[in-house]
Amino acid sequence: MSFELKPEYLENLEEDIQNGKLEAHLETIEDLHPADIAEIVDQLSLDSGKTLVQEINEEKAAEVLVELDEDLRAKILTEYSGQEIAHELVENLDSDDAADLINELSDEKRREVLNNIEDPGQAKDIAELLIYPENTAGALMGKELIKVNKNWKVMQCVKEMRQQAENVEHVHAIYVVDDHNILLGTLSLKKLLTTSLKTPIEEVYNHKLQSVEASADAEDVANTMQKYDLVVMPVVDAIGHLLGRITIDDVVDVIREEAKEDYNLASGLTDEVESDDSIWVITKARLPWLLIGLFGGIMAARVIGHFEGALSALPKMAFFIPLIAAMGGNVGVQSSAIVVQALASKSVMGNVANRLLKEIGVALLNGVICGVLIIGAGLFLGYEVKLCLTVAIALVAVIMVAALIGTFVPIILDRYKIDPALATGPFITTMNDILGLFIYFTIGYALLDI
Amino acid sequence: MSFELKPEYLENLEEDIQNGKLEAHLETIEDLHPADIAEIVDQLSLDSGKTLVQEINEEKAAEVLVELDEDLRAKILTEYSGQEIAHELVENLDSDDAADLINELSDEKRREVLNNIEDPGQAKDIAELLIYPENTAGALMGKELIKVNKNWKVMQCVKEMRQQAENVEHVHAIYVVDDHNILLGTLSLKKLLTTSLKTPIEEVYNHKLQSVEASADAEDVANTMQKYDLVVMPVVDAIGHLLGRITIDDVVDVIREEAKEDYNLASGLTDEVESDDSIWVITKARLPWLLIGLFGGIMAARVIGHFEGALSALPKMAFFIPLIAAMGGNVGVQSSAIVVQALASKSVMGNVANRLLKEIGVALLNGVICGVLIIGAGLFLGYEVKLCLTVAIALVAVIMVAALIGTFVPIILDRYKIDPALATGPFITTMNDILGLFIYFTIGYALLDI
Repeated sequence: MSFELKPEYLENLEEDIQNGKLEAHLETIEDLHPADIAEIVDQLSLDSGKTLVQEINEEKAAEVLVELDEDLRAKILTEYSGQEIAHELVENLDSDDAADLINELSDEKRREVLNNIEDPGQAKDIAELLIYPENTAGALMGKELIKVNKNWKVMQCVKEMRQQAENVEHVHAIYVVDDHNILLGTLSLKKLLTTSLKTPIEEVYNHKLQSVEASADAEDVANTMQKYDLVVMPVVDAIGHLLGRITIDDVVDVIREEAKEDYNLASGLTDEVESDDSIWVITKARLPWLLIGLFGGIMAARVIGHFEGALSALPKMAFFIPLIAAMGGNVGVQSSAIVVQALASKSVMGNVANRLLKEIGVALLNGVICGVLIIGAGLFLGYEVKLCLTVAIALVAVIMVAALIGTFVPIILDRYKIDPALATGPFITTMNDILGLFIYFTIGYALLDI
Repeated sequence: MSFELKPEYLENLEEDIQNGKLEAHLETIEDLHPADIAEIVDQLSLDSGKTLVQEINEEKAAEVLVELDEDLRAKILTEYSGQEIAHELVENLDSDDAADLINELSDEKRREVLNNIEDPGQAKDIAELLIYPENTAGALMGKELIKVNKNWKVMQCVKEMRQQAENVEHVHAIYVVDDHNILLGTLSLKKLLTTSLKTPIEEVYNHKLQSVEASADAEDVANTMQKYDLVVMPVVDAIGHLLGRITIDDVVDVIREEAKEDYNLASGLTDEVESDDSIWVITKARLPWLLIGLFGGIMAARVIGHFEGALSALPKMAFFIPLIAAMGGNVGVQSSAIVVQALASKSVMGNVANRLLKEIGVALLNGVICGVLIIGAGLFLGYEVKLCLTVAIALVAVIMVAALIGTFVPIILDRYKIDPALATGPFITTMNDILGLFIYFTIGYALLDI
């Protein structure tokens, strides 16, 4: 079904490019989808990749650059002057892709590009898109769309659409506006195809539509488009003027990136790392959480040291340190994961008191089951009754405390506008390790004299 | 921007439905998007939700049911006979939604529905869709599409499209087939709008297109549609006959569900749980991983017990048990998370030997940094030199072993066609806890005599 890049082909291509024999491959490569060519460029050496992009035709080159990783794209763009970027690349792209392409350039080079775009309308569109902050609806939108006036008849509409379609790659929706460019609704292609040519647009367009303000958060855009199964959504300003449209493919990227970010945070990786990044990049992404773990481990050592008396009176307490720490960590991560997802999907959280009661219920149930099991296993394996009791009671307490911390830390972070996903993974685990040990040894100490 | 459900409105509605005064709300509710009505039904009591779905007009009710959670939908559908489902619901739906709706019914009721559908074409379409296994392209596709014959002229094409459009809600693409229904390409709306009416289709259609076989995996469909920025993708059989099309909104759901599943597995939750599920459902989703943790904890106790000699010779070794266990767990989860994501995106993994070398490099770098820090911190805090050395050496070893286990377990699982995401989270953590302690005490034991 999909394009597959063979290692032998890549090696052969790399060699031929280095020997100046790219010519023989050009026709085959230009015939591929830009996303596939981008995959090839990504796998080639930097120099060969640069050569390939510069040799294929300009329209393809522009689209390939859009598909590339930001880092690699920036490196290849250094080979182009501002004027070349304007004439060879930007003029072949939709406004949103063009804005993405030049957004990462230096201020100076970006100005040079904008000044060299020949179509003043396109330059204005791109300049406008560059204003919107990252991760807003405005930054995701493109300006290319088809709009018709509510006062037109279907006939005029088809005529005007033919003209507008020259500048639009894909027609997903036809927007209906009034004389002041206020968005009123959409005209379905179905209606256009099945209505008499003399019917006024006003009589056949659909008044109901989901739109989004340019300042809206990208995550909200993704949630809305998913909820209403939208393929394209119009973007308006605060008064309702039609500014542009967001297509679902850009939103799919947002959804995937967010999911990846959450997954990474839960796994203790700070940055977006790929398995083919360099050793140093991967190390940097991992080290912060490891340092938190290290610090937590030292704190845990201090806690146990504090209870050295209990430990020397009942030395086998040391045996169950890993169990207490692991269970606290696991329960904390489970609780926080559920809350983080509820917060992300903006689903109704119910009131916090109810949430608390339910979490206590779940923790109590899990705690009692685990506590009974550990007493049984402990006695069966021949550990002292006092030790088994200490471990079981501590386990119930640790599971309950860990569940509450896992629930509340993300809620509190969210309230202070900090990404609650930060709370999952190593952070919660480390916190629960320390607290769990404190609880364990306190209970052990209390039971010693009995 | 989006619809917001106010608690007061819900309470008021619930009360009015129970008092038989739904009538007053009907008009407002029917005016909402089906996804919004589904949200209301989800929040109401089961009885009120059933009443609401049955009272709104049939077309809306059918769409609302499609938007609902599977469980709730099944409960509400018990109120309908097979004949009612066929006449009131299925006939108002696209084939893919209709297939989803009746897929969960009992065999008997499903047959009753199929036998009662009046349009034999629709019944045949739905019956065909029910054949495809879950999570394949076939199960995701719908049969509604617009297709034209390559031998037609643009004029005839527009005429035929008008007819076909009657049965198609949204027109995303126009497919071009030959006389045997073999898919040849697509006709862009732009071409249709900008070409003379007498041009033969053969001369203007686009030969290049991405299609997918009905047996393909849903995950592959999602990857392909994302890579090529597709809004809709045609589905073909092994010979290339056009069977249907998949729209991106269904794929977005697949992407989100997969991301959620991975996140849950990494967080130690087995099932898809929501924060508003019952205490028992949440407990069931959590307990399996907790039991693994419990078992791991008991194993860890046995390992430490095995080294009781070393522990009584150097009792402060107990202080650093949590540190060793936590670091092993953290490193293991980090390594596995990177591999799991690389496997999921099917990105070129490079050869396994290179991967191994890189992982060893990263682990060594992290290990040495953490080892040096722990020696410094340990000495500063006044722990014995021998203890600091033991902890530091063990830390380097544990980090390296944990990284290798985190890397290899997912690769091995993947090779045996088991979801590698299973390997992340509690599983890797527990394994590394036990191994890490074994390494720690072995090193401690070896250093005792020095």
